[in-house]
Amino acid sequence: MKALVYHGPGIKAWEEVADPVIIDDTDAIVRVEVTTICGSDLHIMKGDVPAVTDGRILGHEAVGTVTAIGAAARRVKVGDRVLVSCITACGTCSYCRDGHAGQCLGGGGWILGHKIDGTQAELVRVPFADLSTYPIPDGVSDEAVLMLADILPTGYEVGVLNGHVRPGDVVAVVGAGPIGLAAIIGSRLYSPTTVIAIDLADSRLDAAKSFGADVTVNNSRDDPLAVVRSLTGGLGADVAIEAVGTAATFELATTLIRPGGHVANIGVHGTSATLHLEDLWIRNVTITTGLVDASSTPTLLRLIGSGQPDAGRLVTHHFQLDEMEHAYDVFADAANSGALKVVLSATSE
Amino acid sequence: MKALVYHGPGIKAWEEVADPVIIDDTDAIVRVEVTTICGSDLHIMKGDVPAVTDGRILGHEAVGTVTAIGAAARRVKVGDRVLVSCITACGTCSYCRDGHAGQCLGGGGWILGHKIDGTQAELVRVPFADLSTYPIPDGVSDEAVLMLADILPTGYEVGVLNGHVRPGDVVAVVGAGPIGLAAIIGSRLYSPTTVIAIDLADSRLDAAKSFGADVTVNNSRDDPLAVVRSLTGGLGADVAIEAVGTAATFELATTLIRPGGHVANIGVHGTSATLHLEDLWIRNVTITTGLVDASSTPTLLRLIGSGQPDAGRLVTHHFQLDEMEHAYDVFADAANSGALKVVLSATSE
Amino acid sequence: MKALVYHGPGIKAWEEVADPVIIDDTDAIVRVEVTTICGSDLHIMKGDVPAVTDGRILGHEAVGTVTAIGAAARRVKVGDRVLVSCITACGTCSYCRDGHAGQCLGGGGWILGHKIDGTQAELVRVPFADLSTYPIPDGVSDEAVLMLADILPTGYEVGVLNGHVRPGDVVAVVGAGPIGLAAIIGSRLYSPTTVIAIDLADSRLDAAKSFGADVTVNNSRDDPLAVVRSLTGGLGADVAIEAVGTAATFELATTLIRPGGHVANIGVHGTSATLHLEDLWIRNVTITTGLVDASSTPTLLRLIGSGQPDAGRLVTHHFQLDEMEHAYDVFADAANSGALKVVLSATSE
Amino acid sequence: MKALVYHGPGIKAWEEVADPVIIDDTDAIVRVEVTTICGSDLHIMKGDVPAVTDGRILGHEAVGTVTAIGAAARRVKVGDRVLVSCITACGTCSYCRDGHAGQCLGGGGWILGHKIDGTQAELVRVPFADLSTYPIPDGVSDEAVLMLADILPTGYEVGVLNGHVRPGDVVAVVGAGPIGLAAIIGSRLYSPTTVIAIDLADSRLDAAKSFGADVTVNNSRDDPLAVVRSLTGGLGADVAIEAVGTAATFELATTLIRPGGHVANIGVHGTSATLHLEDLWIRNVTITTGLVDASSTPTLLRLIGSGQPDAGRLVTHHFQLDEMEHAYDVFADAANSGALKVVLSATSE
Repeated sequence: MKALVYHGPGIKAWEEVADPVIIDDTDAIVRVEVTTICGSDLHIMKGDVPAVTDGRILGHEAVGTVTAIGAAARRVKVGDRVLVSCITACGTCSYCRDGHAGQCLGGGGWILGHKIDGTQAELVRVPFADLSTYPIPDGVSDEAVLMLADILPTGYEVGVLNGHVRPGDVVAVVGAGPIGLAAIIGSRLYSPTTVIAIDLADSRLDAAKSFGADVTVNNSRDDPLAVVRSLTGGLGADVAIEAVGTAATFELATTLIRPGGHVANIGVHGTSATLHLEDLWIRNVTITTGLVDASSTPTLLRLIGSGQPDAGRLVTHHFQLDEMEHAYDVFADAANSGALKVVLSATSE
Repeated sequence: MKALVYHGPGIKAWEEVADPVIIDDTDAIVRVEVTTICGSDLHIMKGDVPAVTDGRILGHEAVGTVTAIGAAARRVKVGDRVLVSCITACGTCSYCRDGHAGQCLGGGGWILGHKIDGTQAELVRVPFADLSTYPIPDGVSDEAVLMLADILPTGYEVGVLNGHVRPGDVVAVVGAGPIGLAAIIGSRLYSPTTVIAIDLADSRLDAAKSFGADVTVNNSRDDPLAVVRSLTGGLGADVAIEAVGTAATFELATTLIRPGGHVANIGVHGTSATLHLEDLWIRNVTITTGLVDASSTPTLLRLIGSGQPDAGRLVTHHFQLDEMEHAYDVFADAANSGALKVVLSATSE
Repeated sequence: MKALVYHGPGIKAWEEVADPVIIDDTDAIVRVEVTTICGSDLHIMKGDVPAVTDGRILGHEAVGTVTAIGAAARRVKVGDRVLVSCITACGTCSYCRDGHAGQCLGGGGWILGHKIDGTQAELVRVPFADLSTYPIPDGVSDEAVLMLADILPTGYEVGVLNGHVRPGDVVAVVGAGPIGLAAIIGSRLYSPTTVIAIDLADSRLDAAKSFGADVTVNNSRDDPLAVVRSLTGGLGADVAIEAVGTAATFELATTLIRPGGHVANIGVHGTSATLHLEDLWIRNVTITTGLVDASSTPTLLRLIGSGQPDAGRLVTHHFQLDEMEHAYDVFADAANSGALKVVLSATSE
Repeated sequence: MKALVYHGPGIKAWEEVADPVIIDDTDAIVRVEVTTICGSDLHIMKGDVPAVTDGRILGHEAVGTVTAIGAAARRVKVGDRVLVSCITACGTCSYCRDGHAGQCLGGGGWILGHKIDGTQAELVRVPFADLSTYPIPDGVSDEAVLMLADILPTGYEVGVLNGHVRPGDVVAVVGAGPIGLAAIIGSRLYSPTTVIAIDLADSRLDAAKSFGADVTVNNSRDDPLAVVRSLTGGLGADVAIEAVGTAATFELATTLIRPGGHVANIGVHGTSATLHLEDLWIRNVTITTGLVDASSTPTLLRLIGSGQPDAGRLVTHHFQLDEMEHAYDVFADAANSGALKVVLSATSE
């Protein structure tokens, strides 16, 4: 088959590789019908994720059809159309049994396109397939479902649930890229009064408005802290969600919240940040970090099945699978291309 | 009357001052029977708390008898023996109504010995007296009750409750001074399997053992991370409580917890710390800070009334009120004096 | 002044009474601009609430202007326009300090129009005025704010929050009268996938649809259990909210939920119900009851200030204050009048 | 092999049956070393549980050694010594993934000795063995571990956790049989100030004291409500745990709690009860029911491994496996035998 193979920092190719086969008896093989590229794939291409080694097929998001299953698969059947989640769950370890598969100790967690071959390919092997794939609900487009492989559960669990967004809250979202938009979409499920999106690019802020931000701040021009304070009687936001992954944006998020507020970090960080404990020690703040567990995936599938939110709107560009390299370029050049999520589809035969 | 008056960094005196009088109609005047010195008083003496200005009477902990009340006091009566809490509550602002008086917006919070005159005096004016004092339960010593003015609720709320200590947990407490001991005492109320105390002084670690630590680590000699890992199958502690107030101890605490664990900061910090987001972003950690709200004070009063915990054991030294300056010296020289909490009592007439 | 005075079961009159005066120093006197009639007022008129005695002015909901304050009122000023909540809070007892003023032990709770004279009058004395009234936000109609005196916080706190409604849930609301509609409005703040309204009157079910019910069941014709099961793969609803106050509707609610689900009782009950523990013991159900605490009133004020929900739509009929007796008739005859909430306004001078 | 076989109400025999064999590839066969009899086994013998049919081997609690495993077992190995839990978990359904295996939709839940053959036998087949058995910690007796097959997690999860027992609480436990004692043991992990045990038998109340009850009430002589009120300033208990399973004891529990309190039902009920909503609607009560999920089993294993609580003390009588019928008689005649838990051991060869 063909797949997008990583060959070290900066080097990748859409090339011929061996088809995946069942290794463990809980595996399934899935023919990929749509997949996408994640911001973390770009991090990998920069060499920021050393666990990814030469020869690895990238990608951790897909919708497709099961073509083979191991002997111990119970729920998944050949022919099932499924969502392949970015999180693989062994189902047996203490973390999986508690709903925290992102921290799986039994061989799962984020492994696709990271520690094992991933979904940017014509076929993918999915371990623990009963627990790591989800049936597709009726009446929902593949593209909308694909947004539940990673980005929407990540924004919802790591941003909205960790941040304890509640009705009536003021929520500041630092960063209006795809993951920030997912956090905005997820926040709206809890009826905040005001969602404030903060970014350096007006085009992203326009997108934020279209996904439900009430107020936007371009922090190349305006002071987010001043805006947040003016909207909150000087107190600060109830929740600040960090959706970029830099020290500066994290530090900004910690300044925006009121005493007793929550900072929910979603961003992938490559360096440390400064935590201003000399200010924060007395302010009853809660700061959370996290990898998605995908525990919300069934809930989000029900929600998009009922029409809220319209996840498919995150998709800005469409390609064929064999245009993968070009799709990476378009996605990486979001500033010019305006790309949010790009979808790659298998050619129908 | 006589009181301990702050005259700028390093300068204080037990001197004659005017008696306090009722200013607001919710005030009470309390004759101090026992008071104590807090670590934050030492911070003030170093000049770390600029809100404290020349002429301020220090102290925010007392047990005494009400000698006068304002016209609007409803619950407190002249002659009542009461605990004066470090936290004053207006009772009307959004924080007070939600149980978070430490963040009071209506003129309360930590004000005694900070923004208004405090308890290291023969008499003290207590604003919002109905909400800021507590009746003394029968059968409990004044000294034990005095420990509920600040240290025990702080260890319990900011350490144990914020840290979500649960039965069966492994809890690491960084710092075994008075506040660390209070966190250990509070943790035991939730039946952890293992409390690990970490400090540089063997004498403090001995105290930690006597208050319920199962394991002690002198981190001038041994590696706390290695000990915690060996006790947790390599995973890390469920909860790490920071009870010192330095960047180094905070950073240590963040390394000790398992994925999904909690870091509860109690320490008063004068500088920023480094937050290693490059490690922590993926580990689902929760970090909390906080000033005590004293919302647990009634619960803790019931508990010490029923004999658990034996709060009075924290008191190592006794003085008369007019020995205040000497008591400061003994308390400040804890390394040699072995002082945990020092109690100063009014001379009975 | 004129007021609606109760003179025993079935007997009431809009009659001349003495103006209220300040009694306690935390009181305020409020000139009523708009008030309304509650289902519980009808219960009182039937004699179901024996604590209400001859001579009592009824009513526990109002918007008006402060005309006098006691010496200890700190926040409320003469001339303030305020919402008078159905719940009075002493602010000092253990329940008030924990956010549960509905259970106030210090002389508050539901007292207006119950244990003391109420709001269906030209003037009303409001005890603990700082804690029992709320400033009116800009840009919101008096009628919309009036809905926050009782019905919306009750539906939200006792129905939605007690019932733990969460995004993606299936919520069954038994009873589509005003309080059931308030529960539907409140549920929508948490983005359930499906709200099922159940009532015997098609007109109420039509109202339910207009306030956000996705599915309606007239249980004079159709079986609610069959509908709920068909919508939930046989499992049952996540949450069932009882909004009537009869044994039959409560028992229905307990049959509708899935294992692990919540039954939130809002209804005022005059008799006991049968609890089918022989079925329920094994099903991990949670059943809650409650009087509103009004702890959500500030949050709901912010929400209606931001345009969600449109509370004013609950108002179907308008009267002048001196049409009070007629307004009772129209409200009591909801089956024919279609009344949801009726608003009575003072004549502008 | 030999096993205790049910042959309809009142009829059972320790008789020769076929050895169990692996059916599903996630099964294990366990040689029973110790097992016990549960109150629910007595219910089955009375015919109260019609799902149990003629020929069924009873029992749902055991400690033993794995003698065979299916092809898909990953964690469990032949030769492992394991605790067999009363709850079997498929690990894949929505309830199992959320930690609520008691409500398993995938073929688990309470099935042993109920829907499939159980543990009162020389050998037992355990489905989903990776998720339904637990390794035995070092240094703990088999008898103590056996108490974690059902009774201790049931008392802890369904009584203590559902009841939200918190430090400083007053907890009333209605019924001081084995499950009531388990609830007392579990409550102590949360440091209540007062545990009140209520029963008709003085011998059981003596046992309650020895397991940590502070106050006992024989309700054949004394009025539990009067005692609870006298201990709580008239308010009522924070938590009432029903540990009998009759309408009368459930109704008693609902009278004992304060406004805002929790009633946690553990008892197995064969009939309905009366719920006095005319009193309870206004009191903000929470009532829970539940079958154990065994989600606390790992935590409790850690706790008994650390010496708290001393679970083995619940065992009052010892028998050989082939004395099973006699052991049933002794257990059923607890009033005279004083039996709490009886343990049956395989004869060592």
